[in-house]
Amino acid sequence: MTTTAYDVQGMTCGHCVRSVTAEITGVDGVASVDVDLEKGTAVVTGDVDPEAVKAAVVEAGYEVTGVH
Amino acid sequence: MTTTAYDVQGMTCGHCVRSVTAEITGVDGVASVDVDLEKGTAVVTGDVDPEAVKAAVVEAGYEVTGVH
Repeated sequence: MTTTAYDVQGMTCGHCVRSVTAEITGVDGVASVDVDLEKGTAVVTGDVDPEAVKAAVVEAGYEVTGVH
Repeated sequence: MTTTAYDVQGMTCGHCVRSVTAEITGVDGVASVDVDLEKGTAVVTGDVDPEAVKAAVVEAGYEVTGVH
């Protein structure tokens, strides 16, 4: 189980946070998601394929610009 | 049946537009709603109490700053 922070571009409000959270929560292996609007990050814990997380963010309508 | 434009403050994305549209659509007497994100307006047609429209916008989490 690892924790990874994804920089998410384009979130502007609480609705965006909810959309991103919901999409990432649906990714296989995700144990927890913490999306921060001000920082523009999604911190994901679990046994997860980062490409699947990126795809979920795109599905929500946003873009991952960095992974830490 | 009249058409009135409401200035709506605080909408930042398409989710906001959807929330405002949904709330106003639920107001008694509304025939049509056209919410414009860039202009920050909600144009409402129908036989409607403007106070009810304002309350719907507040319910969605935004504020009406003008009525034309």
